[in-house]
Amino acid sequence: MRDVAVLGVGMTKFGELWDRSFREIGIEAGLQALVDAKLSSADLGALYLGNMASGSLIDQEHIAPLILDYAGLAGRHLPAVRVEGGGASGSLAFHAGYLAVASGLYDFVVVGGAEKLTDVPDVAGSQITDSAADHEWEIVFGATLPALWALIARRHMHQYGTTREQLARVAVQDHEMGSKNPNAHYRNKLTLDQVLGAGPVAEPLGVFDCAPLSDGAAAVVLGPLETARRYTDQPIRIAASQVACDTLGVQHRRDVTTLDSTVVAARHAFEQARRAPADVNVAEIHDAYSISALVALEDLGFCEKGRGGPEFESGRFAPGAAMPVNPSGGLKAQGRPFGAVGVAQIVEIVRQLRGEAKDRQVAGASFGLAHDVGGTGATSVVTLLETAG
Amino acid sequence: MRDVAVLGVGMTKFGELWDRSFREIGIEAGLQALVDAKLSSADLGALYLGNMASGSLIDQEHIAPLILDYAGLAGRHLPAVRVEGGGASGSLAFHAGYLAVASGLYDFVVVGGAEKLTDVPDVAGSQITDSAADHEWEIVFGATLPALWALIARRHMHQYGTTREQLARVAVQDHEMGSKNPNAHYRNKLTLDQVLGAGPVAEPLGVFDCAPLSDGAAAVVLGPLETARRYTDQPIRIAASQVACDTLGVQHRRDVTTLDSTVVAARHAFEQARRAPADVNVAEIHDAYSISALVALEDLGFCEKGRGGPEFESGRFAPGAAMPVNPSGGLKAQGRPFGAVGVAQIVEIVRQLRGEAKDRQVAGASFGLAHDVGGTGATSVVTLLETAG
Repeated sequence: MRDVAVLGVGMTKFGELWDRSFREIGIEAGLQALVDAKLSSADLGALYLGNMASGSLIDQEHIAPLILDYAGLAGRHLPAVRVEGGGASGSLAFHAGYLAVASGLYDFVVVGGAEKLTDVPDVAGSQITDSAADHEWEIVFGATLPALWALIARRHMHQYGTTREQLARVAVQDHEMGSKNPNAHYRNKLTLDQVLGAGPVAEPLGVFDCAPLSDGAAAVVLGPLETARRYTDQPIRIAASQVACDTLGVQHRRDVTTLDSTVVAARHAFEQARRAPADVNVAEIHDAYSISALVALEDLGFCEKGRGGPEFESGRFAPGAAMPVNPSGGLKAQGRPFGAVGVAQIVEIVRQLRGEAKDRQVAGASFGLAHDVGGTGATSVVTLLETAG
Repeated sequence: MRDVAVLGVGMTKFGELWDRSFREIGIEAGLQALVDAKLSSADLGALYLGNMASGSLIDQEHIAPLILDYAGLAGRHLPAVRVEGGGASGSLAFHAGYLAVASGLYDFVVVGGAEKLTDVPDVAGSQITDSAADHEWEIVFGATLPALWALIARRHMHQYGTTREQLARVAVQDHEMGSKNPNAHYRNKLTLDQVLGAGPVAEPLGVFDCAPLSDGAAAVVLGPLETARRYTDQPIRIAASQVACDTLGVQHRRDVTTLDSTVVAARHAFEQARRAPADVNVAEIHDAYSISALVALEDLGFCEKGRGGPEFESGRFAPGAAMPVNPSGGLKAQGRPFGAVGVAQIVEIVRQLRGEAKDRQVAGASFGLAHDVGGTGATSVVTLLETAG
């Protein structure tokens, strides 16, 4: 299996991009990544696209060739493949692109993620969000995706003593970092009182415990590590890319407060990279809901099971600490265009490892982790990236 | 790039399976393939699923972990990834599974394709079919997928003198073969007069020029060729798997009567296999509409451009000829559950190469081709399979 590197990254602003189409944002991110990689489109072998719900949103399946076409690449007849796995669609596309280069069939591929969620009424957006959970055993009985995560939060509070304030601190930190990120959907800071005082979505989760629905796109260019230095002084090696899955419905899990998919994907990823959680300098973790982040810290191996709340509250994962999480602002502040999220996480980690993250730079970061989740954890993807020596 | 073999195949009956759920048919096909490969689920590394429209059909995205779960494999936390590309979703999933094994990250993977199209009203089914064409530039102006293929047919008739009877003969042959296939949606034979006399869908295409919407699932197990003989006496080597794309909309193509995606995918596939079209003994080709099959014969290199009609009429591709097409009955008679189609084509070719195709066996077949198309040809996938010496 040959080594694969990230050669270029790009992303649009995330937010309510009502003046721009799905096609436009997909292409902007892809071209940025190509330019960043100092490649021309003539070098490309294939396109992988993460997208969750274009069929429901705009009656358009078969969306990968569309993006290829609007990028001006239809005449080259490149393979263009859409990959879907709920909110983890972007990182699953990354995994597919990684394997495609690792296999040797393609040298250079673009992996893009794009989603346009704010062009439909909120109720349609919620219905689409819920389609990542189990329709037949959860949603038809009145559950929603935030309600299912609220259930995980309640049980975590009951079992481990996690407090409402500890949950709220996730949003406060995310917005603090988002305020430094020009691409973030939300750049306003939030106080603890604002988060605690916000209206409930599904108790204990309030409005500010839940990431928004966003429009946005992100892209990366991958290629063989051995030739990477021809294109960039700072190739970023993919040390591991691992996917693991679980039951779609929360009620069928071994333990409601543990995402076994994350536990397994992380274990396999650290095995593949021959590294340990303690080696990680910077991480982008799944925080679609504030509880998601605390559970992720535990399941990724950054702290003991049940200790996510107090350890987060202690500042162990804050800016300036040994391993800050979500310097981008996370899904909460940077935004949550489903299919783009996992790719945007990779973009942020690459910028951190290159030392290009400006105001939000984690000093000296050389080994980073990205963690993407679909639904309530039926899919988890863990990617490990490192500066190539 | 290591060699990959097909170790096992399975499929459900195609048709109107109103008494069986999406989950059930997906699992039946997968288990058949595992048993056929003499593997247990403990050997599996990943699941790839081709599915086009579960989001629109049953409000369920994130469908790959669902199938994993219902197959009893959620507890093993295997990666489960959905791949989508319109009607080519199944063969794109196959391509992804092939690269996954070729890369060395996984040893054994199941590739499944499943779709349940007859549980919704016909109008919804048509809307979903159309979502594989260009919504913004074709469908909103009143075009439908059959109308777009009818346009291709009209131009082909004008440019090359292709006749209505030549189109009709595709359906007659497909139903003749379908009558010998116990899994086929339609097992009745059709006469030329019946096809010609059927009501119009989009002229010149009548009801019998158009493949049905079907329910169904198919699956294959892939693994490294070097260890394949531990599991089967007849491993089938994947000699090539190639994808190519084109504009989503027909009106943007270089030539309306040529699927450049098919031309390029076929050229790359024969290059990869170091073989030529003349070497092929049996082929499953895309015949969603009768014109699709004639165009495919040309674009795959089996006859000159424009000669598809007369060459098909001459019997060159009929049962008993040197290279019969669609011994399964094709999409027209075997059926057309979008995401399952491309995988079912591989299943048929594998059975032909193993000599297990019973009444529809092509004598002595050792090298076969499968050709899958999404929409009007924005995606084409060509797979070449051969008996492993």
